[in-house]
Amino acid sequence: MKSVVVGIDVGGTNTAFGIVDKDGNFYGEGSIPTKTYPSFEDWAQSIHDAIMQTLKQQNEQIEIIGIGIGAPNGNYYNGCIENAVNLSWSGKVDVVGKIKELFGNNKLVVLTNDANAAAVGEMVYGGAKGMKDFIVITLGTGLGSGVVANNQMILGCDGNAGELGHVIIERGGRSCGCGRKGCLETYVSATGIKRTVFELLANENIPSTLRSYSFNDLTSEMIYKAAVAGDAIALKAFDETGKRLGYALADFSAFSTPEAFFLFGGLAKAGELILEPTKRYMEESTCIIYKNKIKVLLSELNDKNAAVLGAAALAWSELS
Amino acid sequence: MKSVVVGIDVGGTNTAFGIVDKDGNFYGEGSIPTKTYPSFEDWAQSIHDAIMQTLKQQNEQIEIIGIGIGAPNGNYYNGCIENAVNLSWSGKVDVVGKIKELFGNNKLVVLTNDANAAAVGEMVYGGAKGMKDFIVITLGTGLGSGVVANNQMILGCDGNAGELGHVIIERGGRSCGCGRKGCLETYVSATGIKRTVFELLANENIPSTLRSYSFNDLTSEMIYKAAVAGDAIALKAFDETGKRLGYALADFSAFSTPEAFFLFGGLAKAGELILEPTKRYMEESTCIIYKNKIKVLLSELNDKNAAVLGAAALAWSELS
Repeated sequence: MKSVVVGIDVGGTNTAFGIVDKDGNFYGEGSIPTKTYPSFEDWAQSIHDAIMQTLKQQNEQIEIIGIGIGAPNGNYYNGCIENAVNLSWSGKVDVVGKIKELFGNNKLVVLTNDANAAAVGEMVYGGAKGMKDFIVITLGTGLGSGVVANNQMILGCDGNAGELGHVIIERGGRSCGCGRKGCLETYVSATGIKRTVFELLANENIPSTLRSYSFNDLTSEMIYKAAVAGDAIALKAFDETGKRLGYALADFSAFSTPEAFFLFGGLAKAGELILEPTKRYMEESTCIIYKNKIKVLLSELNDKNAAVLGAAALAWSELS
Repeated sequence: MKSVVVGIDVGGTNTAFGIVDKDGNFYGEGSIPTKTYPSFEDWAQSIHDAIMQTLKQQNEQIEIIGIGIGAPNGNYYNGCIENAVNLSWSGKVDVVGKIKELFGNNKLVVLTNDANAAAVGEMVYGGAKGMKDFIVITLGTGLGSGVVANNQMILGCDGNAGELGHVIIERGGRSCGCGRKGCLETYVSATGIKRTVFELLANENIPSTLRSYSFNDLTSEMIYKAAVAGDAIALKAFDETGKRLGYALADFSAFSTPEAFFLFGGLAKAGELILEPTKRYMEESTCIIYKNKIKVLLSELNDKNAAVLGAAALAWSELS
């Protein structure tokens, strides 16, 4: 009987899962659309059923010994998702309690911030191997972050540390899902770059293929493709996004001075288009004591399984 | 023979020292004016001589077994002060090397950021006893910070972590000693509040006793006294300073979510005048997940010996 864990990545749009062994090999995977479950109870039942279904389809004899979950505002200490602005479940939902109820109380179930899970994944399977100080920035629907310092995940006094998407970079700026204005993630995320495109379309007279899309239809992937094709608005949107992110990373350097920042998630797939301006503006803005010292890298886990792998790595690191 | 350590606090204006036993008792203290030593070598010789002089005056038989030094941009890893913007010694000066040369190579000599030393002091002798996550903000000529997370000092990959005075809070704002513009310490520090007073005197038609002082003559202590006497400009300057600091602390909460922020140093002596607006604006600005959770406290070491005690605590913690 082979021991495996389940890695679950709860995103604003989809919840993905994978059955993963200690070496990072996958034994089946799947996903359910998070948004179609306004009820947390229904979501939990549905993810349980999807995992059990996938498990049945495996030929090999495998046993689930743990479940790692990465979720927006997932709290390691109390096992709850609390006030996640990109999820429709309001207040505090007891994820670890509910998942244990469905899978059995003998299973290790551990929850953390989705970005913390990505950071554990980067440390175990990715580019942060051997680094004791690094920060993973996840660029999805929102902006998440996992801060590792002195070889330890920074969880803070209550498990809510590392929410760098909610640092205010423009007071009175764009409305954020958290109820405030000007948070970093309203500028730097898949949604943020779309908002920047619409701002540029409003302000500039430059022709752009992006003028033919509605706000609802436009995706960050379409902005990426337009930029690759030389669209001036799309290129400017990447530069603006890199500027906001680079300036923010310069400020974050003054906090924990990481060896590297890793960019992870949908928007990071744009590669040099986001990396180059981010590095350039970070160096332009940063204090002299940090200049030319701190790397900005793309996550080495940047494929569709990465967040799931991170959640699985979390379960394995708790089990060991 | 009683074992003692020397704590040295290098400030932009004065360098203070104290001879301190393990329980925090002082066996003599003194200071030299840092600013009158444009040469680092001369400063080192002078602080050595002052300490030896003070040592001779003691009746008790005491032996120096270690020296702890807190200094702006003091680097724990390499023992150097690097590019400290409030000191006149440019580039990188080897403090640990020089002090060992003067006191003898058998002595433990340890250097850190002055604010990190204050944080160690707060942890050992002050209000942070038993806390595993807290941040000390030092409000002197500049703004320093010492970040403790998971019970460990956050030093970063190169020892330069925790320079929160150089987070940019107003892009294109006030000129900072670091060569950039809009750093937190240009608004929130003894110098920052003076700049705010001068801005208010320029912008407002409100009568104020502070209109009779030159920029060179005005001190933060005078602003404090004017505020206590009800001077409207001074009161507004404290409110503005608390607003800038409160907003910044709200952002810092998203990084390491400390149990408490401790305010330390000259400006913190204003007590409620700085504490009340800082708390109020922090709560106004902070993300919902941090609201009403994080304390803002005055350092319990807030007297003239505190920074020296912190430096001494650093030496003791290295020796044990």
